[in-house]
Amino acid sequence: MFRSPSGTGCIITLTTDFGLDDAYAAVMKGVILDTCPAANIVDISHSVQPQNIAEAAFLLRSAYPYFPVGTIHCAVVDPGVGTARRPIAIRANRGMLVGPDNGIFTHVVLEDGLVDRDGSLLSGGAVELVASEFRRAEMSQTFQGRDIFAPAAAHLGLGVPLRNLGPTVKEIHLLDLPVPRMTAGVVHGCIIHIDRFGNAISNITVEVTPRVARVIVNGTEIEGLSRSYQEKDIVAIFGSIGFLEIAARNGSAAHRLGLQVGDSIQVSP
Amino acid sequence: MFRSPSGTGCIITLTTDFGLDDAYAAVMKGVILDTCPAANIVDISHSVQPQNIAEAAFLLRSAYPYFPVGTIHCAVVDPGVGTARRPIAIRANRGMLVGPDNGIFTHVVLEDGLVDRDGSLLSGGAVELVASEFRRAEMSQTFQGRDIFAPAAAHLGLGVPLRNLGPTVKEIHLLDLPVPRMTAGVVHGCIIHIDRFGNAISNITVEVTPRVARVIVNGTEIEGLSRSYQEKDIVAIFGSIGFLEIAARNGSAAHRLGLQVGDSIQVSP
Amino acid sequence: MFRSPSGTGCIITLTTDFGLDDAYAAVMKGVILDTCPAANIVDISHSVQPQNIAEAAFLLRSAYPYFPVGTIHCAVVDPGVGTARRPIAIRANRGMLVGPDNGIFTHVVLEDGLVDRDGSLLSGGAVELVASEFRRAEMSQTFQGRDIFAPAAAHLGLGVPLRNLGPTVKEIHLLDLPVPRMTAGVVHGCIIHIDRFGNAISNITVEVTPRVARVIVNGTEIEGLSRSYQEKDIVAIFGSIGFLEIAARNGSAAHRLGLQVGDSIQVSP
Repeated sequence: MFRSPSGTGCIITLTTDFGLDDAYAAVMKGVILDTCPAANIVDISHSVQPQNIAEAAFLLRSAYPYFPVGTIHCAVVDPGVGTARRPIAIRANRGMLVGPDNGIFTHVVLEDGLVDRDGSLLSGGAVELVASEFRRAEMSQTFQGRDIFAPAAAHLGLGVPLRNLGPTVKEIHLLDLPVPRMTAGVVHGCIIHIDRFGNAISNITVEVTPRVARVIVNGTEIEGLSRSYQEKDIVAIFGSIGFLEIAARNGSAAHRLGLQVGDSIQVSP
Repeated sequence: MFRSPSGTGCIITLTTDFGLDDAYAAVMKGVILDTCPAANIVDISHSVQPQNIAEAAFLLRSAYPYFPVGTIHCAVVDPGVGTARRPIAIRANRGMLVGPDNGIFTHVVLEDGLVDRDGSLLSGGAVELVASEFRRAEMSQTFQGRDIFAPAAAHLGLGVPLRNLGPTVKEIHLLDLPVPRMTAGVVHGCIIHIDRFGNAISNITVEVTPRVARVIVNGTEIEGLSRSYQEKDIVAIFGSIGFLEIAARNGSAAHRLGLQVGDSIQVSP
Repeated sequence: MFRSPSGTGCIITLTTDFGLDDAYAAVMKGVILDTCPAANIVDISHSVQPQNIAEAAFLLRSAYPYFPVGTIHCAVVDPGVGTARRPIAIRANRGMLVGPDNGIFTHVVLEDGLVDRDGSLLSGGAVELVASEFRRAEMSQTFQGRDIFAPAAAHLGLGVPLRNLGPTVKEIHLLDLPVPRMTAGVVHGCIIHIDRFGNAISNITVEVTPRVARVIVNGTEIEGLSRSYQEKDIVAIFGSIGFLEIAARNGSAAHRLGLQVGDSIQVSP
C-alpha cells in the first residue's frame, strides 16, 4: 500500500509551528522534493502556536481521516529538538506519521487503536529515525524538520520500507489529554480548541452523550442541541469532526461568552 | 474542455474564510485528493474576513481571469451553511464555479455575461449539488465545504459532466454590488477593497472614465492620473485588474488618507 | 540541466510581499500554470514586510540551498515597479533567479560566486526580461509579477533558453549588506532577522568565528556556545543555516532581551 517506487502520487502533509513568515516550511519542502520529486506536499497548518504540541496533535487529528490512504503526515512541533527525545515514524491505519516522539501523534494513534493508554504499541509498527542514509548528510542541532523528518517522509514517499529507517520502537509517548468524565448522568468535558470563527470545540463526542438537554459553559446555559449555526443566537452543536462545539450565529461564541481553551463544559441529559 | 478522465492536469482553486490556523482548508484538500489524486490545488485566499461574501467575490474575480481555461474554482464563504441556501456549480466561460448560491460568484457571472442583472441564467449552465453519489457519504450540518463542495469540485476534475451533479438551476443569487454612477460628467464610485499595501481599490473602471482630471476621495484631491506608484506621493492609477486605485509611494494610502471600504470617490473629467 | 521540454518536474518558488489576504500571489500562480501546466509551485514566503527587499533577499537565501538543482526562484518585492529598474533573470549554480534588479538576489549571487563585490557578473549569465513574446500581451504598470516575472519563470520552466528572454546583463544591483568586522580578535556583527520563535539571527558565520567564549548583545552577556535550544535559558548557537543566533528556552529571545533587526552583537574568542 505504501510502496510507490517512483514516488508517483505520494502525498506528504506538513503540520508545524514554523509560521509562514520565515523560510523554514519552504526549506522542508525543498528537501522533500530533492529526494521525492513527485511528492504532492499539502500544508495542514504552519500556524500552531510555537511549541504547542497539543494544538498540533489536535489539528493533525482533525485532518488525518480525510486524506487518502497512504498519505504521509509529517508533524514538527518540537521544543525538545536536539535533546534526547526520539525522532520516530509510525505506520498508522491510513498512512504514515513522521515526527518527534513527544505526543504529537497522541490522538491519531489512540483513535486508530495502535497503542494502549500507556502508549505501548499494539499494532502498526514504529521505528526510531536513526539510519544515517535516510538523514541529511550535514546535521544541525536545531532543525531536525529539515535534517531528519523531511528526508524520512520523502524516503517513505519513494517506497523505502519503514523498517529500513531505524530500529523498532515499542512505546509511543502520549500527551496526558483531558478525557470527558460522567457523574450522575452529567458529562464533564472541556474546551480543547477555539477556531477562526470563534467556535469553541470541546472534547465531548456524540458517543458519550446520546442525549443533550442542557449545556453549561462558563456560566451560560444552552437549551438543547442545534442542527445549524443559524438556528439561534448561541448554539450547542456536534461539529464537523464529531465534537460538541459552542457557536454564535454570525459571530464569535468564544468572544461573546469569554471562552478559552481549558474551560470546563457540562452536558446534562 | 472540462473532460479529463484521469483528472490529469485539472486545477482546483480554493477561496474561503477558513484561515490557515485551523485544519479546515487542509481537510478540503484531503477530500479533493481522495477523489481526484491528480488535482493541482491552488489557494486563492483563505483569509477572507469570516462570513464576508463580498470580499470573497472580489478576490475570486481578481484571480479568475488569470487561471487556465478549464480551472475549477471552489469558493466557500458560507454563513448560511445548513440552511435552505442551495449548493451550486456553474459552467463559466473559463471554467467551473462551485460553492453556495449566496452571491459569491456575482462578479464572475456578471462579467462573463452568464446572467442578467436579476441573476437569470442566459448562458453557461448551473446545477444544484444534490446528487448523493457526488457528496460525502456522511454529511455534517456545519461543513459543506468538506461534504458537498470539495467532492463536487473533485468529481468535475475527474470529468464528471456538470448535469450529473444535480438538477438545473435557472437563477443565481447576486450580491447588490455598488455600481458607479455618472452625474454631470462626474463619476461617483466607492472603495471596494484595501489591499496589503494599503492601496484603496475602487469600483471605477477605465471604461466608464475615459478622462481623469481630478479625483476626490475622503476630502483629498488628487490631480491627474499616474502611470507608476513612484510618480508622486499620492497617486490615482488604474491598477492591475483595471480598477481606479489610490496608492501612496512606499506606504499605505489607506492609512495616510484614512480610507476604508465603502468610502465614496469622485472622478472629474 | 534546465531544459525540460514538457515542463515535467519543474519547480518554481515564489518569494513576495503580496501577503495571503489578497489574490496577487494566486494570480501569479494562475499565469504560471497557464504557460507551464506541469509547474510545481512552492511558496517560500509571501509575508515579506511590504517593500522590504533585504528581508526577501534573506528568506530566499535561507531556502535556496535546499531546493533541487534546476529550481526556478521567482522573487518579487518591487517598490520600483513601473520605473527604470530592470526586470532580470540570472543563471545561478543551483537554478534560475527571476525578479527585479533591485538587490533581491544579493545573498545568492554573492554566495554562489556569480558576481564580485560591485555586482559585475563573473559567471553564470543574466538577461534583462524584455523579449515581448515571453511577457503577457497586456502589460500593466503596477503588477510586473503577473506580467513579466511569472511568464518568464514559466517559460524557463518549459525549457526556453535564458538567452531568448532578452539581452545580456553584465552587472547585478547588490544591496549594501552589513558585513561582520574583526577588531582585536572580537567579531562585530548585527542582527539581520528575528524569526517566528523570537530567535535573533545575526550575520556572523561559523567561518569567521572559530571560537566563541562570550557573546554580547544589547547589554546581555552570554557565556559560551550551546548545542541545543534547551541547554540553558538564553543560548548563543549556530543555527540551521550557519549563522550565530540568540535563542531563549521555550520562549522568545527577541522579546526577553529586547532585540531588533540592526542591533549590534559582539563575539569574543
